[in-house]
Order: sequence, then structure tokens, then C-alpha cells
Amino acid sequence: MDILDIRKLRRPEQGAKIKVKDVGERSLISAIHRLQAIVPMGYVGIGDDAAYLPPSSAGWLISQDMLVEDVHFRWEWITPEQLGEKAVIANISDIAAMGGIPKAILTSIAVPGCFEVEAIEQLYRGVSKALDRHGAVLIGGDTVSSPDKFTLDVVVLGNPGSRGPVLLTGAKPGDRLFVTGRLGASYAGLILLSHNVRWPSTSLYHRSVLQAHLAPMARVEAGVKLGPLAHAMTDISDGLISELNAMTRFGGIGVKIAAEKIPVDDATKAVAHEYGKDALDFALYGGEDYELLAAIPPSRVQEVERLCLVCGVPVTEIGVVTDTLGIHLVKNGEELVIDERKGFQHFAVDRDES
Amino acid sequence: MDILDIRKLRRPEQGAKIKVKDVGERSLISAIHRLQAIVPMGYVGIGDDAAYLPPSSAGWLISQDMLVEDVHFRWEWITPEQLGEKAVIANISDIAAMGGIPKAILTSIAVPGCFEVEAIEQLYRGVSKALDRHGAVLIGGDTVSSPDKFTLDVVVLGNPGSRGPVLLTGAKPGDRLFVTGRLGASYAGLILLSHNVRWPSTSLYHRSVLQAHLAPMARVEAGVKLGPLAHAMTDISDGLISELNAMTRFGGIGVKIAAEKIPVDDATKAVAHEYGKDALDFALYGGEDYELLAAIPPSRVQEVERLCLVCGVPVTEIGVVTDTLGIHLVKNGEELVIDERKGFQHFAVDRDES
Repeated sequence: MDILDIRKLRRPEQGAKIKVKDVGERSLISAIHRLQAIVPMGYVGIGDDAAYLPPSSAGWLISQDMLVEDVHFRWEWITPEQLGEKAVIANISDIAAMGGIPKAILTSIAVPGCFEVEAIEQLYRGVSKALDRHGAVLIGGDTVSSPDKFTLDVVVLGNPGSRGPVLLTGAKPGDRLFVTGRLGASYAGLILLSHNVRWPSTSLYHRSVLQAHLAPMARVEAGVKLGPLAHAMTDISDGLISELNAMTRFGGIGVKIAAEKIPVDDATKAVAHEYGKDALDFALYGGEDYELLAAIPPSRVQEVERLCLVCGVPVTEIGVVTDTLGIHLVKNGEELVIDERKGFQHFAVDRDES
Repeated sequence: MDILDIRKLRRPEQGAKIKVKDVGERSLISAIHRLQAIVPMGYVGIGDDAAYLPPSSAGWLISQDMLVEDVHFRWEWITPEQLGEKAVIANISDIAAMGGIPKAILTSIAVPGCFEVEAIEQLYRGVSKALDRHGAVLIGGDTVSSPDKFTLDVVVLGNPGSRGPVLLTGAKPGDRLFVTGRLGASYAGLILLSHNVRWPSTSLYHRSVLQAHLAPMARVEAGVKLGPLAHAMTDISDGLISELNAMTRFGGIGVKIAAEKIPVDDATKAVAHEYGKDALDFALYGGEDYELLAAIPPSRVQEVERLCLVCGVPVTEIGVVTDTLGIHLVKNGEELVIDERKGFQHFAVDRDES
């Protein structure tokens, strides 16, 4: 019940690591509390029954994402610090997808008793790293025991841009489809991890795609700039095809995508080649790239290209919104078949890499 | 990817239950989506990258609570519908503890593949029941696969009352301590469940405490009324002693509690007697009562009693805030020893009943 400074608790004997079960839930919460920065004026943070966010004239965006050990990550593949950082970035990406700016997060963790307290510290070091990069703070959450697997559930709150939230739906026939950055690299990194290549690898290509998978970036600045120009926007967390499906699902619209225009970098191509795979599949179905996909009316296309020069984020036009339902994927004039089963589906498809 | 109506999917053959792994994550999300009411004007709900809450001049309270199978609940003891309802009520209680009104929730669930789709429907029926009772809505969340245990993480958002959030800290020497309702009943229900008594039992006493454990209430109305009068307030989710500790921890204050005044109902006493336990221990250390504990300045005591008559919630004065640090528990003039180890601690104490 007392506030505990876990740094004092660490036993001096070599190798005698303190486990979560030795410490107790409340002490762990206090320790997490101490690792955090002070919350801004007007906020109520960790330690009360609920956190408090002061009035914002823009309203609040909120998103929640759960990661489960051996479903979304494996401890042999990712360090606690990388996981903490990635979990926050993945959530912040959802705020970027709405054209918003992240402000605060809450984290629930379910921790096996044999888990090391030091690993929790490292996890929250990663959380802080991601928060610091985006000027956001940890304001609350929950810490509970898990009988078996480590589970982390992150909630992020942010403010939308001046024109309000930019929705997934709203694209209109004639809109041009743009993506930021490069696609497929995260999946290439996952392929390496599943073939026992570990960070940091000696190969520069390997490093590049492992970095994309283990330490992705969220496109907050690009989202703020693209949002006011876009009819619709989303982040590419489940693969391009999956996001295009979501974007077109309710709108009575379709999209025509030029496969050869989809940006795939050399490292991703090299890894795909190394394992006899098609890099285009990584980009179409891979997931966890956290790039943005935006539908831009033709009259704003020049602005998009100018803005992206300003913020240094590459942006590529990959296709157009049409009034023909469905996704039409064309490569050098020929229509490709879309294999929906390759899309990211936790339950239906047994993809143990994800 | 298509929207799925899980009611159509249920196979007509007797006993052929559909499992989550047969359906896929996106279909499950769509099904959950369909079970929900339409969100209020100005909100963005399930289906986009993030939900959106419009500006509120009062700001937003937010709380998060994670429940893990075999740590916080057992499927032999609670139905999916009861669990869904209880999880939401437990979170809404945190909003009540701040004197606030719940408005929206998000839910993350990690579901084993062999889980029945029908059980998910039932869980969300319970969620809806709790939401409808308090006029709140489901606006988002996450649905993922779990290799083993079912995990549910609920986030609730609400607006504070007109005087802002009522904090856990802020009690002053001389304040009177009030609790709503009765304490210890939930723990008595847990004792029954751990002794293979199941809902509905034939005994009225059993029914009463099982109800307290499986289908607790959140004191939202009482919180709204007590909040503006209180120097400090919290809900009793981890047992009275634990909450008193939290309330006094940072304030340089203590409390003197009259043990004989702590409200314990006849059903709780009967169950304690049946199992050779002390009902007072249930009230002090039991947890999950979701009653409110408020520190009220002496000048407002009469108002508290009048208000609680109006809203029909019993309120009992159990002690006073002092300038002597610590919790002093007195029974008929003699000081009782407080056994902190009995308090609710997931990791340190292996309480398999909780």
C-alpha cells in the first residue's frame, strides 16, 4: 500500500531479479506513476478513481488497441521497451488517421506474476519515449495480474484538427488516393523475425525492415496537414487492401489502384526476394505500416504535394476513387485478383507471425 | 470483411454452436456494432479509426479497468451477460466516485478462438443493459484473439458535475466520513461462489449477496448529489480499509472509524456466520461493493442526510477525519488492529476467490 520506489527495491545480488509477484499491484502502480512526467495543468492523472481532461473546444478523439502476447507479439522478437513504444505509436497512429493530435493515454496491463519488475520499467520507458516524441502524457489505466500471457491495452485521446475529425468514409468518385511513406516494410520485418533474424541484424536491409516492424512511426504531422484537404483518411494498420475495403464499404464507391505505383522500398523488395515472396503482397496485405491513406479531391492535389515537401514525408498517388463498387487493382494494364484471405484476420486465419 | 449478421449465421442443427474462430475478427466487430444503439448526434462511434466526443464545457472524466479470466472472474461463477454488465458498472462506479455522469464506453476484448459467438452476444447484452440504465453508449474498442484466457478491458468516459471532478484527496480534519449502502455483501457472495453455491440459490440471504457480487449497482445519482458537498470522495472497489488508505495517503491526515457503525446487512452477517467468518472483515477488506465513501465537512452533514432521503440511498456516518496519521479503527472503545495483508492485492496475495 505504501509508495514504493522500485529502484530501491532492486536487490544488489547479481541475477536476483525482482518479480512482479514479490511487489504487489499497488506498489507497481506507484512505481509506474513515478516514471511518468507531471500531467499538464487542469488534468487529473494517475492515482484517482478517474483521470480528468479539461474542456477542449475541439472535442476529443479516442481510440483503444489491445495487444496480447503470442498473438500480436512474442517476447523473443521484441524487447519490453520496443513493445511499450510500439503500442503507443500504433494507437497514436489512429489519432493521426483522424487528422488529430495526441494528448493523453491510459494503459491497462495484465502481468504474469513471474514477470520481472525491471521489464515493466523498460516497457514504460518505451511508453514514455513515444509520448515524449508527440508531447502526450500518461494519465491513468489499470495494472492487474494475468495467469499466463502478458496483455497490454492502450487508450489514446487527442484533439481533432481545426476542421474536426477526418473520417474513414466520405471519399467521392474522382478523388485521388494518396499514401504516405512506404508500404510492406513492417511485414518484411515480421518475416525476418519469424526466420530467426533478430534486431540489430548486420544487414542494412534487414535493419531497415526490422526497424519498420519493431519501432514504427506515427504520421501525426502529415495527418494534420493532409486532414483538412482530404474527403476521407485512415491509417494503414491492417494492410492496404483491408483499409481500402473499409474506406469503400459504406460509400457506394470503389477504387482503382495502380499496383506499380504502390511505394515499396528496396529493403522490403530485397527481403521479399530473399524469402521467395512477392513484395507487393507485403504492401497489399501486410499490415502495421502505420502510414496514411487519404482520398484527396483533384483540386487539392497540388497542395498535398507541396505540403508533403514541407514536412518531409513522401506522398505517393496510387489510384483514384470510382463509382464502380469494389477494389480494382491494375498492374501494367492487367487487373490483378485480390485475395481477401491474405488480409489481417486474427481469428479466421491462423497467421502465427502476427 | 463483409458485415455479418451473426443471428443468420447460427446453424439450425441442435448443439452446433458457432465459435469465434469460425467467424473472424472483423465480422465479430460488425456483429457487436449491430447490437449497439445509435450514438448521440455529434459523436463518431464504432467503425472509424477513433471515436469522437464533442466538446463538453465540463471536460471529460475517464477511467479504465481490466478483468482477466481466472484472476477477476470464473466462467463457472458468472454468465457472460452478468460479466458484461458488471464490468461496465464497475467502471461507471469510478465516474460516480468523481461525482460525474457516465456518457460513453469503449471495450477491448481478447477472446479465445473456441469461445462461442453466442457468449459474445450475451456479454454485449449485459454491456447494453448497464449502459441503458445509465444513459451511456458504446463508441468503440478493440476485438482481438487470445491464446488462452478471456480478457475484457473497459474504458468509461463521463462528465463531471457542475463543481468539477471530486477528488480522492482533499479531506480535512473534522470532516465526517459517510458511506452509501451496505458493505461486505459482494465478498459474502464471492465466499458462496467459492463454496459451490450458484445463482440463483434457494436461500434469500444467498440470493441477496450473490446479487451484490454478480450484479452490483453504481451509485451515480448519489455521487452527483454527494459530490458538491464533499471535500473528497471515492468508490469502495477494493475494500474500505484500502480506500481509506488511498484517501489519507497524501493528505497528512488520518481517520478514526467506529467499527460498529459500518453498515453490514443481515444477509452478509448470515453468510459470514454460516462459514465461520467475521462479517466486519468482509466490509473492511472485501472489495467490489461499489458504494461511495465521502468526507463531508460538518456544516454539510444535514444536507447529506436530506439528499439521501430524496434519492433513496441509505447513507451512514462511520467516522471522522483527524490530524493523526493512519487509520484508527475503534470497536466499542477498543482499538482494533488493521491487517493490511487482507486488503485486495492481485499479485502479492494469492486470493483465488477474487
